Amino acid sequence: MMSTVSACFEKIQNDTESHARLGRVRTARGSFETPGFLPVGTQGSVKSISPRELIEAGTQAILCNTYHLYVRPGLEVIERAGSLHRFIGWDKPILTDSGGYQVFSLTKMRKLTREGVEFNSHFDGRKIFLSPEIVMHIQSVLQSDIAMVFDECPPAESDKAYLKNSLDLTVEWARRSKQAHQNMSRDGVTPSLLFGIIQGGRFLDLRQESLERTVEIGFDGYAVGGVSVGEPHEQIEEVVREMGNRLPEHQVRYLMGVGTPKDLFMGVEAGFDFFDCVNPTRYGRNGSAFTSTGRLVIRNAKYTFDQKPIDETCGCYACRHFSRSYIRHLINCEEILGARLLSLHNVHFFLNLMRRMREAIQTGTFAALKKEFESHYEDDLR
Amino acid sequence: MMSTVSACFEKIQNDTESHARLGRVRTARGSFETPGFLPVGTQGSVKSISPRELIEAGTQAILCNTYHLYVRPGLEVIERAGSLHRFIGWDKPILTDSGGYQVFSLTKMRKLTREGVEFNSHFDGRKIFLSPEIVMHIQSVLQSDIAMVFDECPPAESDKAYLKNSLDLTVEWARRSKQAHQNMSRDGVTPSLLFGIIQGGRFLDLRQESLERTVEIGFDGYAVGGVSVGEPHEQIEEVVREMGNRLPEHQVRYLMGVGTPKDLFMGVEAGFDFFDCVNPTRYGRNGSAFTSTGRLVIRNAKYTFDQKPIDETCGCYACRHFSRSYIRHLINCEEILGARLLSLHNVHFFLNLMRRMREAIQTGTFAALKKEFESHYEDDLR
Repeated sequence: MMSTVSACFEKIQNDTESHARLGRVRTARGSFETPGFLPVGTQGSVKSISPRELIEAGTQAILCNTYHLYVRPGLEVIERAGSLHRFIGWDKPILTDSGGYQVFSLTKMRKLTREGVEFNSHFDGRKIFLSPEIVMHIQSVLQSDIAMVFDECPPAESDKAYLKNSLDLTVEWARRSKQAHQNMSRDGVTPSLLFGIIQGGRFLDLRQESLERTVEIGFDGYAVGGVSVGEPHEQIEEVVREMGNRLPEHQVRYLMGVGTPKDLFMGVEAGFDFFDCVNPTRYGRNGSAFTSTGRLVIRNAKYTFDQKPIDETCGCYACRHFSRSYIRHLINCEEILGARLLSLHNVHFFLNLMRRMREAIQTGTFAALKKEFESHYEDDLR
Repeated sequence: MMSTVSACFEKIQNDTESHARLGRVRTARGSFETPGFLPVGTQGSVKSISPRELIEAGTQAILCNTYHLYVRPGLEVIERAGSLHRFIGWDKPILTDSGGYQVFSLTKMRKLTREGVEFNSHFDGRKIFLSPEIVMHIQSVLQSDIAMVFDECPPAESDKAYLKNSLDLTVEWARRSKQAHQNMSRDGVTPSLLFGIIQGGRFLDLRQESLERTVEIGFDGYAVGGVSVGEPHEQIEEVVREMGNRLPEHQVRYLMGVGTPKDLFMGVEAGFDFFDCVNPTRYGRNGSAFTSTGRLVIRNAKYTFDQKPIDETCGCYACRHFSRSYIRHLINCEEILGARLLSLHNVHFFLNLMRRMREAIQTGTFAALKKEFESHYEDDLR
């Protein structure tokens, strides 16, 4: 067994037939195993699920959104709690995204300069200015275990010239993010890990340029961003498959905002180590379950009398205790427990899938697991 | 220690200074201790709370609504699950109300005859006819542990002539409910307990007449209904204080739909054995917590930075792990976890209050507990 150790990432084992790898990410608040999936707690809560339930489902780390938390409840509230962890009752690792994606997708009236971006809050219209330095400060107050550089996240349909300019800006902001991070460490602030973000949209040459210039700056880990932001699935697939293994081999590789069970297999196969996505909770709240045979829309009349659990192969609290028939009734009546049970099952399903991938890499059966999974799984989300 | 045993109720001990009593109600699915409180699972879910959490909070039995479950998901769905218990994943006692209150408060276009009542469903307008016989049949399909007779529940402001006629009808329906219940038992259906309901509005002479005529029919327990349906608190108080100890001494006494912490003390003091109310979950969803010092409206700006738990004297999951500041943020952001934590705390608070009352009756300190509680508790709900 080969073991390569870098500052925060330990690569434990390579898959024999793909770029998949088994590893471990170390943070100030403990480590998590990769390939891994981070449930998303946008506003400081993985929607409808309690921290205790997250732990029971096997959650190793979560993602929270810098932008949302900055808007509400605001920095002072979290600072007074001591840290984001203490505020939300979660003592395992937290990765905070930098807000780049939210600023460029949720807000209106943006004014973008080299210095930063001014915009109106999506919540109350309040004017907000964010820069790499400000975003690093926010993440240090949150006491993130993994902070992300501030980036511009352009729309999927942007033309190449726009994407090239945006890339230049993101590289400059990455450099300033790192500088601000170093200054804070120098000033005695407990340092988080800091990850760079590769942009460049659907153009592989821009992606390559972004990668090289970001790696040149030097970060604890690297993420591919701006994927699954509305582009056709073939474009997602091309970027994921091409970029995964171009990222530095001995550092951790993070594919942001992806995705579906099949996309997770694809990402792991391409060499990515971890992922985050709102899909488990968003689909759960809307009445959909991810199962070993595909997506199950619980409102469907065929489940009216169905006494089976959501997924017969699942051991989560929802599947151990409740029938499709009952959960369908809860969702139809807009009972909160319905959204809870489906969200909890979905998070459990995603985490369990990653666990099975880790075991398969370890035993040299990743390709077989992927084949077996895909033979049963009908994916209507692609 | 005096112990008086009737079919389903064991009175264990009388309070020395009031009509309060310690007891135990036995049902086909286990017993529960009194004074007790039943959280309400209107549509087959105590809103936002899982069965596991209910057990952890000390729930001994819950109430479900015959009318709501008949409308959605409908009898066939529950029948196919085997029982309401199996459908909702709850194996402790369930009391089902008869739907009388809902029919007369939620529905429009009612046509009331001696035979029964025809009305339009509040959900989809579908025409429904309910009679004592039908309601007893529904409750037998649900496999309630405690079924209630079908009653007319007139508005608080009804005049005496209307209330007298209504009382006559309710008595006739109680007789027919009992007959239908006996026929089902004879036909081999597992018998639930069956409770009669005392009506009569704000008029004590009508209440007395209702009591005598209902007791004459003979039931496993007796409930006082039509209380806290919009009348002034002095009227609630008069009926509760007067009626509690007029109900048969050796049978269980149930005060329906009440109420607030202070009302629970009043009810227990008056001789009632158990209670149900949506208050814990309804106030919880709306951002209010019941605490040892009164009601806490979490949206209040003064809790913005408050690191204390909802109630410093409480040991529930919410109070052990989360601050007022965080729960306020969750409620402000309409995060489901906020409604969950407040609802859970409130249910825990009500159940814990009943537990303390039971202990106090046992140790002869009920009056002292009531005095001590009321000295700290500011009740803005009266």
